[in-house]
Amino acid sequence: MGQVASPEVGIGMVGYGMMGKAHSYAYTVAPVMRSLPHRPRLRVISGRDEGKVSQAADAYGFEGWTADWRELIRRSDVDIVDICTPPGTHAEIASAAAAAGKAVICEKPLAVTYGEAASALDAVRKAGVLNAVGFNYRRLPAVSLMKRMVDEGAVGKVRLLRATWLSDEFVDPAIPFDWRFDRSMGGTTIADLGSHLIDMATWLAGGIAEVCGQSETFVRQRSNRAVTVDEASSALVRFESGARGVFEMARTAVRRPCDFTIEINGESGTLAFEYARLNELLYGDNADQPQLYGMRRIRAEHETHPYSRNWWPIGQGVGYGASFVNHLGDLLDRWPDGPWEPDFAQGAAVQAVCEAIERAATERRWVELREVTHRTGGAQAEHS
Amino acid sequence: MGQVASPEVGIGMVGYGMMGKAHSYAYTVAPVMRSLPHRPRLRVISGRDEGKVSQAADAYGFEGWTADWRELIRRSDVDIVDICTPPGTHAEIASAAAAAGKAVICEKPLAVTYGEAASALDAVRKAGVLNAVGFNYRRLPAVSLMKRMVDEGAVGKVRLLRATWLSDEFVDPAIPFDWRFDRSMGGTTIADLGSHLIDMATWLAGGIAEVCGQSETFVRQRSNRAVTVDEASSALVRFESGARGVFEMARTAVRRPCDFTIEINGESGTLAFEYARLNELLYGDNADQPQLYGMRRIRAEHETHPYSRNWWPIGQGVGYGASFVNHLGDLLDRWPDGPWEPDFAQGAAVQAVCEAIERAATERRWVELREVTHRTGGAQAEHS
Amino acid sequence: MGQVASPEVGIGMVGYGMMGKAHSYAYTVAPVMRSLPHRPRLRVISGRDEGKVSQAADAYGFEGWTADWRELIRRSDVDIVDICTPPGTHAEIASAAAAAGKAVICEKPLAVTYGEAASALDAVRKAGVLNAVGFNYRRLPAVSLMKRMVDEGAVGKVRLLRATWLSDEFVDPAIPFDWRFDRSMGGTTIADLGSHLIDMATWLAGGIAEVCGQSETFVRQRSNRAVTVDEASSALVRFESGARGVFEMARTAVRRPCDFTIEINGESGTLAFEYARLNELLYGDNADQPQLYGMRRIRAEHETHPYSRNWWPIGQGVGYGASFVNHLGDLLDRWPDGPWEPDFAQGAAVQAVCEAIERAATERRWVELREVTHRTGGAQAEHS
Amino acid sequence: MGQVASPEVGIGMVGYGMMGKAHSYAYTVAPVMRSLPHRPRLRVISGRDEGKVSQAADAYGFEGWTADWRELIRRSDVDIVDICTPPGTHAEIASAAAAAGKAVICEKPLAVTYGEAASALDAVRKAGVLNAVGFNYRRLPAVSLMKRMVDEGAVGKVRLLRATWLSDEFVDPAIPFDWRFDRSMGGTTIADLGSHLIDMATWLAGGIAEVCGQSETFVRQRSNRAVTVDEASSALVRFESGARGVFEMARTAVRRPCDFTIEINGESGTLAFEYARLNELLYGDNADQPQLYGMRRIRAEHETHPYSRNWWPIGQGVGYGASFVNHLGDLLDRWPDGPWEPDFAQGAAVQAVCEAIERAATERRWVELREVTHRTGGAQAEHS
Repeated sequence: MGQVASPEVGIGMVGYGMMGKAHSYAYTVAPVMRSLPHRPRLRVISGRDEGKVSQAADAYGFEGWTADWRELIRRSDVDIVDICTPPGTHAEIASAAAAAGKAVICEKPLAVTYGEAASALDAVRKAGVLNAVGFNYRRLPAVSLMKRMVDEGAVGKVRLLRATWLSDEFVDPAIPFDWRFDRSMGGTTIADLGSHLIDMATWLAGGIAEVCGQSETFVRQRSNRAVTVDEASSALVRFESGARGVFEMARTAVRRPCDFTIEINGESGTLAFEYARLNELLYGDNADQPQLYGMRRIRAEHETHPYSRNWWPIGQGVGYGASFVNHLGDLLDRWPDGPWEPDFAQGAAVQAVCEAIERAATERRWVELREVTHRTGGAQAEHS
Repeated sequence: MGQVASPEVGIGMVGYGMMGKAHSYAYTVAPVMRSLPHRPRLRVISGRDEGKVSQAADAYGFEGWTADWRELIRRSDVDIVDICTPPGTHAEIASAAAAAGKAVICEKPLAVTYGEAASALDAVRKAGVLNAVGFNYRRLPAVSLMKRMVDEGAVGKVRLLRATWLSDEFVDPAIPFDWRFDRSMGGTTIADLGSHLIDMATWLAGGIAEVCGQSETFVRQRSNRAVTVDEASSALVRFESGARGVFEMARTAVRRPCDFTIEINGESGTLAFEYARLNELLYGDNADQPQLYGMRRIRAEHETHPYSRNWWPIGQGVGYGASFVNHLGDLLDRWPDGPWEPDFAQGAAVQAVCEAIERAATERRWVELREVTHRTGGAQAEHS
Repeated sequence: MGQVASPEVGIGMVGYGMMGKAHSYAYTVAPVMRSLPHRPRLRVISGRDEGKVSQAADAYGFEGWTADWRELIRRSDVDIVDICTPPGTHAEIASAAAAAGKAVICEKPLAVTYGEAASALDAVRKAGVLNAVGFNYRRLPAVSLMKRMVDEGAVGKVRLLRATWLSDEFVDPAIPFDWRFDRSMGGTTIADLGSHLIDMATWLAGGIAEVCGQSETFVRQRSNRAVTVDEASSALVRFESGARGVFEMARTAVRRPCDFTIEINGESGTLAFEYARLNELLYGDNADQPQLYGMRRIRAEHETHPYSRNWWPIGQGVGYGASFVNHLGDLLDRWPDGPWEPDFAQGAAVQAVCEAIERAATERRWVELREVTHRTGGAQAEHS
Repeated sequence: MGQVASPEVGIGMVGYGMMGKAHSYAYTVAPVMRSLPHRPRLRVISGRDEGKVSQAADAYGFEGWTADWRELIRRSDVDIVDICTPPGTHAEIASAAAAAGKAVICEKPLAVTYGEAASALDAVRKAGVLNAVGFNYRRLPAVSLMKRMVDEGAVGKVRLLRATWLSDEFVDPAIPFDWRFDRSMGGTTIADLGSHLIDMATWLAGGIAEVCGQSETFVRQRSNRAVTVDEASSALVRFESGARGVFEMARTAVRRPCDFTIEINGESGTLAFEYARLNELLYGDNADQPQLYGMRRIRAEHETHPYSRNWWPIGQGVGYGASFVNHLGDLLDRWPDGPWEPDFAQGAAVQAVCEAIERAATERRWVELREVTHRTGGAQAEHS
């Protein structure tokens, strides 16, 4: 009969909504699915509603809870502060946590403006703490495989990239006003949905040089309040490499619950990912035998594929949750030495693209990324 | 034992390439598949290469051939001149045929510039002859069904439309220079692939008010000659109705032979068409029972659907050829009184959008459609 | 100005229904799409209803019509008799046409019993005339490619084959009784739908040694008459090679208009065809790179693929009609020397399998094919 | 600052392989994803290899481990014994655990013969303990939705059911002999893959009356030992209701990792599930508007759908793991009063079908289920 022990790392979570649930799931699951040097210990969760946060603490397996996130970041048994609150609060909490010497994991988008994102980046740099942004979709096995294949030259030099995210979250005009419709708290649809696309795109194809964009809000009043966010936006993109891209993100697409796609056409190949078939990756190789002309549907669960050894036998498939397990698992795996990625620098770089698109749409012109990053001054984000 | 007869209409075809084959197929098939008041009689086909055109005449079933299209348009037994030559020649031939009093069917795009398109439109208006442009994809049963459903309110007011056309026609840098790479003869990729998308989009969602665009040519020299066309372009679009659109057209997408998609998100529904499944139409209806949340895959061959009664039992499917049979069949069905659609006015209107996108890409700014149509003066195109 | 001529072959068609339309389409189209040594000339079509057959003659382009098929087979200007009537009439007409020295093309199934099929086979053998059965689906480009790949060893020795055909033709219990519900005229569902599957299966994987089966008729009375055919049947199959198969054919599958699939798993590969995506072929190769694990979706329109040069550019797609054009085109291409395939020997062999399944279902036991073919005596069918 | 507590239920797990990992994952995750009256406490895990079991205990979060499963079932802090060992050991362990008064959860198949399954059923009945079999796929949200829809009449009376499971687990002849190739330890492929299909089929469509079958083993020797299991089998099935079914299960299908499908055609509708798209369900309704003819792809994650409230926002998707979380979560939710389902009675009933198919294949004849269940005598299984 044996006994078991391993070093731990203390987690303090700010926010208990769907992202809080997803992160809690991941902290709970990660040690079962993969070997981790430090086991996460769910110390404390914070939230303003005492009833709900205490219930969440119980459900998610936290040892305690508090209504005050400032108390949470002061606790000595908290090593990592994980921020799962609405976007408009991210930068302040992240900066405070960093100042308190905590490692910080922040949900995406890092902020609702590039200025705030840059200040959060400043804060973690000054504090010298590990920092990460919740671009979890990178860690879907098929998306990670896409990255590996691009890096290994499977498509050659990238020429075109298109990425689209469609949801029907805002279709119903009867949905009452809430923070998601408030630019200062929820950020734009460009940032909410598009930041994932921009993160994946720049990870796969490098930095963006300039953008043009358009935005529309079809339902402009809810609960007699002005909706201050775009419901649907799209953008044309020139990458630094010369590749060209098209992004679209909309929360007004009926019966599209959360359908995102990303496709790359390179000099010698095509790679395409469709979220509705998240365990698969389409690949067309120009060097393939002509008589087999077409695309392969790679089952991205082969034992040679990213993360596959942590999960199920090939063909069984993982779901959304796996992206969090893989993401947070990777961060825990590198605790406490790092590096962590994607980090706040990437989070701020993505935010700059979001803001450039927004500005391009407003000013009806092409906007260079350096217009956004220079004008703000302060810490300058780079692609990690 | 019976005998058979029916009135005829004389066809003169200019050009014998793939489009010539497709149109000949359609003229031959249409009377078998549907009842037509006038049976097309393939009088004469013209082409510059005598050997090839005589062979084509034999294969396609024309009674005769000529190397001189001017001879063809003068013949009294030719009622309709069908133009299947490269784009750069369309306007001249169409104008001459109209001046000779012939009805004119012209392959798309109507011309390689808006100015030429407008002059062809002028010519047919002055001559008072029937005229049509070869936007055959409208007549795919599923696309026609999409139009009918939009018109019947299946998706409500259109909010978003996206359309993409990917081919790998230009991927190989070793393809020698030919007229497709010459702006003045082949026109742009925007016009070659995009004109179909623009035609369907404006048919479905109404006129376009302004556009922004980007274009790229990755292989800039072929056979030591400068390639003067874009290989890949994309555009943001504002419709006159306020709807927003995104177009992309590329001939540099590996292992994408001819994959086009078009999706509309309206206030109350979504309709999506994917060419690779051309007998189907995806439909999501917001008013549907919530527990059936999702999209239907309509098999667009039901006896209630457009063109279905001319074809096969449901589930058997038609191919590319059916679009031509349906298109030319509809024109023949309305011979000689008309109206024909899409006509040169729509052809010119589409050309204006193509040119606006091209100009927007060159001048790096949003371009209003009226900048294109006004500056040119002359006949002004309207959506038919 | 040129003139055109080519040798002709006279076609006499018995029957004017959907199959008559499909064959007429094919005869009309084939010369346009491919070079043929003899151009089919549609001499005469027969049918019992004078009004309908005269209308069909006009629509399909026949020079004349008759209400008496016996008159048709006597005509000296008819070289080929093409039988498009209900199954129960096939054998008699085919035998008479052969006796009159005509080449015979007979729609599938060749007969409604193996005995009749064998007698038709006898008749064409005695007469020494060319003969063919209408298993048109073989000539879908993707199915022909499947055959070529199997023959070239793309999957190794065949181990498993499954084939399913689902339609909803008989779902509605209110459909009144007609010949399709009459065993002696329409034949079984096994023969109507299954004969195509059995033809493709034996073409791909060789002869069948024994079968077991089950059949069901859910709606047993229509218009107060007993339905004497099965509505749904399925079978287990042992091929002579030792491979195992499963067949299912049903006309009671709601919202399945005509969905057939066929999949082969060999020692080293898998090939799968799904009719709803008829221009594609799925291929999984065990020797493929493990990191690309999955199936390819071959676009079966590449210029190296069967029939592709007769049709459209890759990606455009053909439909149901192409199977007839390719089938009848191949027969015309080999006129008058042959060989033609699939011929009556294959038609009778397929019929034997149909009958073995029917007997197995009735007698609730495994039935060897030779039980069917021996007991009947007379001409013995072999796989062509 | 709050503190948390809830009643617990002690889990003892026998076996630490992939199923052990999957169940551990589920016990860990379930309390985070849904509210449970008793929180599972992972007391002890057993396995013969001390090194591996101690490592598994650590990874999976068990408090202790033992090399002797008999010790485990004697422990007073173990309430539920969860059996995750090879099939040949299930019945003995389950019976012993029941005799010790423990509730038993046993992985499928319940045993490798119907006789053993019946004896295990006897044991739990005599002991009066809760018992469940690991048919986890029932608890995939889309499969549970399929059941609910069938029960609610969405397809009317079931007429046809087909279910196929293809894997490539045994394709490679170089795989050395192990227990999976040994009939007495691994059971048949019918039982390994097919038991899931049979469980879902009988759950959806009721009991099976008789079967016919065929089996094949293509690689009959591995490591110089005789392979005593079938690699591929198929069966025809008559349900007690009169519905007809076809099952196929094969471990020799190249590039088919774990692709199972199940389709039901009822009098008024069709429902189809394909594992490769496990968050979706296809539905065709005969009463639907004709002009919308086709199937809907229901996104089986709507808030009205089974299990959806425990998981992610619609469109995000769950994976294989969710089936275990839902299954074990349901059992824990009903602790300690029950009822649990599917229980050993269903496990034995499924085993009887497996054995009937095996016998039918061996004896080359139809086998009635009661031949299997009567001959054995003892406890008779019924569908739960």
